[in-house]
Amino acid sequence: MPPIPLLIDTDTGSDDAVALLLAAASGLGDVRAVTTVAGNVPLPTATRNALISLEVAGATGVPVHEGCDRPLLRPLSTAQHVHGQDGMGDLGLPGPRRGPEPGHAADVLMSYARRFPGELTLVTLGPLTNLAAALLREPGLLGRFRHVYCMAGAADAHGNVTATAEFNVWADPEAAGVVLRAARPETVTWVGWDVSRTYAVMTPEDQRRLEGLGTPLAAFAHRINRTVAEWASEVTGLAGYDLPDPVAMAVALRPGLIVGQERAHVTVALGDETRGQTIVDRRRAAREPNLTMVRHVDEAGFKDLLFTTCAGTGRAA
Amino acid sequence: MPPIPLLIDTDTGSDDAVALLLAAASGLGDVRAVTTVAGNVPLPTATRNALISLEVAGATGVPVHEGCDRPLLRPLSTAQHVHGQDGMGDLGLPGPRRGPEPGHAADVLMSYARRFPGELTLVTLGPLTNLAAALLREPGLLGRFRHVYCMAGAADAHGNVTATAEFNVWADPEAAGVVLRAARPETVTWVGWDVSRTYAVMTPEDQRRLEGLGTPLAAFAHRINRTVAEWASEVTGLAGYDLPDPVAMAVALRPGLIVGQERAHVTVALGDETRGQTIVDRRRAAREPNLTMVRHVDEAGFKDLLFTTCAGTGRAA
Amino acid sequence: MPPIPLLIDTDTGSDDAVALLLAAASGLGDVRAVTTVAGNVPLPTATRNALISLEVAGATGVPVHEGCDRPLLRPLSTAQHVHGQDGMGDLGLPGPRRGPEPGHAADVLMSYARRFPGELTLVTLGPLTNLAAALLREPGLLGRFRHVYCMAGAADAHGNVTATAEFNVWADPEAAGVVLRAARPETVTWVGWDVSRTYAVMTPEDQRRLEGLGTPLAAFAHRINRTVAEWASEVTGLAGYDLPDPVAMAVALRPGLIVGQERAHVTVALGDETRGQTIVDRRRAAREPNLTMVRHVDEAGFKDLLFTTCAGTGRAA
Amino acid sequence: MPPIPLLIDTDTGSDDAVALLLAAASGLGDVRAVTTVAGNVPLPTATRNALISLEVAGATGVPVHEGCDRPLLRPLSTAQHVHGQDGMGDLGLPGPRRGPEPGHAADVLMSYARRFPGELTLVTLGPLTNLAAALLREPGLLGRFRHVYCMAGAADAHGNVTATAEFNVWADPEAAGVVLRAARPETVTWVGWDVSRTYAVMTPEDQRRLEGLGTPLAAFAHRINRTVAEWASEVTGLAGYDLPDPVAMAVALRPGLIVGQERAHVTVALGDETRGQTIVDRRRAAREPNLTMVRHVDEAGFKDLLFTTCAGTGRAA
Repeated sequence: MPPIPLLIDTDTGSDDAVALLLAAASGLGDVRAVTTVAGNVPLPTATRNALISLEVAGATGVPVHEGCDRPLLRPLSTAQHVHGQDGMGDLGLPGPRRGPEPGHAADVLMSYARRFPGELTLVTLGPLTNLAAALLREPGLLGRFRHVYCMAGAADAHGNVTATAEFNVWADPEAAGVVLRAARPETVTWVGWDVSRTYAVMTPEDQRRLEGLGTPLAAFAHRINRTVAEWASEVTGLAGYDLPDPVAMAVALRPGLIVGQERAHVTVALGDETRGQTIVDRRRAAREPNLTMVRHVDEAGFKDLLFTTCAGTGRAA
Repeated sequence: MPPIPLLIDTDTGSDDAVALLLAAASGLGDVRAVTTVAGNVPLPTATRNALISLEVAGATGVPVHEGCDRPLLRPLSTAQHVHGQDGMGDLGLPGPRRGPEPGHAADVLMSYARRFPGELTLVTLGPLTNLAAALLREPGLLGRFRHVYCMAGAADAHGNVTATAEFNVWADPEAAGVVLRAARPETVTWVGWDVSRTYAVMTPEDQRRLEGLGTPLAAFAHRINRTVAEWASEVTGLAGYDLPDPVAMAVALRPGLIVGQERAHVTVALGDETRGQTIVDRRRAAREPNLTMVRHVDEAGFKDLLFTTCAGTGRAA
Repeated sequence: MPPIPLLIDTDTGSDDAVALLLAAASGLGDVRAVTTVAGNVPLPTATRNALISLEVAGATGVPVHEGCDRPLLRPLSTAQHVHGQDGMGDLGLPGPRRGPEPGHAADVLMSYARRFPGELTLVTLGPLTNLAAALLREPGLLGRFRHVYCMAGAADAHGNVTATAEFNVWADPEAAGVVLRAARPETVTWVGWDVSRTYAVMTPEDQRRLEGLGTPLAAFAHRINRTVAEWASEVTGLAGYDLPDPVAMAVALRPGLIVGQERAHVTVALGDETRGQTIVDRRRAAREPNLTMVRHVDEAGFKDLLFTTCAGTGRAA
Repeated sequence: MPPIPLLIDTDTGSDDAVALLLAAASGLGDVRAVTTVAGNVPLPTATRNALISLEVAGATGVPVHEGCDRPLLRPLSTAQHVHGQDGMGDLGLPGPRRGPEPGHAADVLMSYARRFPGELTLVTLGPLTNLAAALLREPGLLGRFRHVYCMAGAADAHGNVTATAEFNVWADPEAAGVVLRAARPETVTWVGWDVSRTYAVMTPEDQRRLEGLGTPLAAFAHRINRTVAEWASEVTGLAGYDLPDPVAMAVALRPGLIVGQERAHVTVALGDETRGQTIVDRRRAAREPNLTMVRHVDEAGFKDLLFTTCAGTGRAA
């Protein structure tokens, strides 16, 4: 099976970085371009981290383009208390050898979609600001992708940033609303925080196994998640740190990892009380589904892909 | 074990009526007073239905007091499309032989709680308007009950009146907020719609079994749920109609039916998007729990209590 | 003209105190009872201040009853930064010689209204919590008063606590909503912050004149507004401190002071952005008016009543 | 004085059309480009009407570019009940002789601003969707204009589409929020509905005078406002129909017409209760002003400009 042609939109923090490794070093993906957005970290930091991650993955030829430096409407509120001030565990990583290319992310998304209609899979790992900005200009954009996977939301209204909201949607709920308004379940799939919390938790044993691989990729993937691991044990109460972006990327690269999914009409709450919560209408009387939500992933398969990729054995396919 | 002394606050529609049978005819409850509130049906209809149900249960000595005829702040919006215009399946039931006693429900709740401190179990089956009105006058009221059980909310943000809200909370979300503000998990337990949807569905087989009992109680319980059964098959997509109020009452009468419960800090959404949704904070960083929510009930035990009671064999204890 | 029989509901801070002087010492009012509510200050402080003020006015026979110690739904948020920690300018005033009478404010309002139907004028000077609590129990209560005057709102969406909200409505917007839902323009008149800001500002000259009167009433009225005067010059930018409660009381005592008023359909915003703002619908398509709002008061007449009363010359009529 | 170089963004209905006449036929403006947006009417209709209006004004060389066909997030809700199905009084006007040029409005705004930094005055007459879409791509855009005038809002919270909101802001409140977030009072001036309601009402006498001019421009301006005139007399209760867009344009063309203005920190309400209301913070403690709002316009001067232009005497300067 040939690698899947990918566009990746990312607010690169530590788990985005791991997702970029999967995309660029598993052999399953053919990364055509990466666009960056403010989210986990401010825009320049996201861009820096994306460039570093691609370097580690050996994908120095992939162009990186910067996009929106703030949400559509809200002030920027980062997750640097989770991912570290530098978004990468505050290890003092050296900077990348190159910088971003010219061209705004929203233009890049529109341009690639026009040039390769129906061919590209878009994977978004951050707030949906860039995609929304492009949709405002080109309302039919989503239909020009082969598929769009988003790490976004929480299908069970159990959040990681508020009681009921997941960070990417909470950070720019209006952008998420713009995307959902334009979405169709055949085209857009969300992988929510419920999935990573349940099927993509790096237990202490998993962490030791990753570290023990001894390869540069594994060392990188392990070390940059240092602050996330601390935060997770204190705040989420999970048995380790979870990997929302990597599991979303894994599903995009290998859809067979999806064990269960659900189609529903989904909107996003914008008011203060439940800001960023995904409102999933499961009533019979609900409107037509606009979204596919992954609910269950093959955990062993996901971790196998992760370890195989980080072991540096190349084309996992 | 002696019967549990009960106060019951009810917007009597068809499932409230079944709950009243359980309370008054199972032998497990000692119903001291019933108060009525607008909800499923307008207040006079709720009062009428409560009186009829007590008559069927042979509890003609239990005083019934009327309370609030509308939510604290919102216009009244009934569920007569579910329970029938008369709230009892539109069977043309004859009226009760007596009327309500004087005294407003809010006063009655305060007065009984003062006279029997720590002795009474309050079970609410409708919008929390009466209890909230009493709490506004007497902020420490909840602590004067032995326990308070409420059929209220949906612990999983999957609603029966909107995408995310359960009817009783949605109908008067401010009242629910007043109750939650004053609640403590040692004192207040909610039995949500998720419980009845999962563990208290009357399948066609259950319905036939109930009808087949051939007693007046069984005939009454079966027939008044006629319109609910139709609505449920069309709207909820369940395998039958569910019994939210009876399962809450069963839990109050026999707490051993609770298989699983959860303590959490819970608030209610008031804004339009998620009005009446219970916001359950399961993060480690959440505020102290203020509520116990039942999550899992012994389905067989519940149905056994229901059938035994309707079979008219008296004291089920 | 005989004095007007009055009930007064107050969260007694410094301007409430001046209003109580007008009611009790102008000769225009016959104060039958005073009820207290949390607002400017916590409930016990409001009660203390009401008792002190009545003593200063020589009205030691007027019963004072305590009511709600918090808003219907919101946490209590006082204005002690405006009126002083003690609500009376932090002068170290000695406590009152008596305490409150038994009976909850909400019951007192209902009871007086029943005993003297159509006779009593109710003047509310604080958040509308007590009146709302009574209305929940007795929806027709407002119609049993001769008239209800409320210091509440801001008819021009220019607020004193947020950009668009007046304190009394902001402090308990749900209570205000309950009152407006039950209001009719023949019965209920609001005197908003726009009125006091425009027609009831105590300029430095007015303040000197008040102080110069040399009477105990004048000294009291002058000194307790010390912290308000400071706050006003810093925050509101007015030419002095304004007297919202006294101008509302003046209008109740002498309706001829009203120069201009407006009937409209008015609701209260409950969402965070505009919490407590009065939404005045002036479109032709608006719903039927439910409220009379005073818009223009005879400033000279108001001040004349104030100075005459404080000069201690007794019955101003 | 040389004509003012203009960009105009318009959801062309009947009063936009009159504003276009002022811009293109008064001699005061040098219209470089017109962009269209959905608002009063759907996008294609707005484009058609803009082209027609420019033809009537003799400005057939001005390029017209289409922009967003819906608000950022909300469904499109037009004002065709006010301006007519065709937005121009349903007169059966013949279509324009040309169509729009290629290039999306948001790109056009960015491109002109880059090419002529500090030279162009932007006047927006519709929902702020196009400007917001451009701002998402280029956050510093507003500073590249000489000035930006918007027909938007209502400085007194008295609305024309809801109790408190003006149509252009209500129609796309998120877009208005994006603009206000980026605005500075030196650069952005809003002319609200309060201004047109007070200083730009076409009384029956004004309407007769306009019709009586007998020129093609006057006939056009008079006839297309036919349905607006009917609506205004029924709904607004004004002494005629008001001209929001023309008075905003007049102020942009001849800033000396401004008699009074106000600087304040202004935001837009997004919640349902007060959606689209401008929240003007006039407290001393308010944040730094971000907006200039015109409050008082020289009515005679405005009408003189209108009549002179429609009389077809050419360069009014």
